[in-house]
Amino acid sequence: MFPTASSTEELERGAVLAPRFDANGLIAAVTTHAQTGEVLMLAWMNAQALQLTLETGQAHYFSRSRQALWKKGETSGQVQQVTEVRVDCDQDAVLLKVLPQGDGGACHVGFRSCFYRVVEDGVLVEREEPSRT
Amino acid sequence: MFPTASSTEELERGAVLAPRFDANGLIAAVTTHAQTGEVLMLAWMNAQALQLTLETGQAHYFSRSRQALWKKGETSGQVQQVTEVRVDCDQDAVLLKVLPQGDGGACHVGFRSCFYRVVEDGVLVEREEPSRT
Repeated sequence: MFPTASSTEELERGAVLAPRFDANGLIAAVTTHAQTGEVLMLAWMNAQALQLTLETGQAHYFSRSRQALWKKGETSGQVQQVTEVRVDCDQDAVLLKVLPQGDGGACHVGFRSCFYRVVEDGVLVEREEPSRT
Repeated sequence: MFPTASSTEELERGAVLAPRFDANGLIAAVTTHAQTGEVLMLAWMNAQALQLTLETGQAHYFSRSRQALWKKGETSGQVQQVTEVRVDCDQDAVLLKVLPQGDGGACHVGFRSCFYRVVEDGVLVEREEPSRT
């Protein structure tokens, strides 16, 4: 579905999308809000999820717990319209910018972002990011 | 070094930092710029790297290619002063906010962020994020 880069130069500076999936066939995906830049979640994609994300413009992931393709929002309504897809230098991570649909959230716990807790003196404190646009 | 959460409720809403390392003992870490919010990199931490990051206030990772603890900037000078550490809902990902030292970059290729390429019509195009503060 995706090619393999033939050299470090091609991997890092080339124009060919050649994602490096891990031993489980997965790549990490960071998802941010297209308007605020807030980091919403970190999830995983297999080749099919990445392909469907690029084809449909809606975020697809791979659920490690369910071991299944997962179209974000299929049950929650929190569909993610993708405005941009980036890859990192060694193409083992993907960055999505999205516009969350439905209630505008991304986290099943009920927060806007999955990263709603800060580590303070070794203890977790719930504190959402201040909104910014 | 870190405890295991005893329930989903404790994992998702508790105050105990109970990171869920994967089969290789690693957890994904997303690193953003503390001032601009730009996503700089995605890397990995083992328990020691996370502990050292929390203790020293400087980002430590685990290099999967070198299979070794990696203090960011030790050779490049791109030390990352950590201003905030967050965890996600199921505690299998960490979000760091950092102030990059040295030349202010985070990527070994020479860009400010590792995510310097956009996927456009299936092809990678180098385009750094516009600066914003």
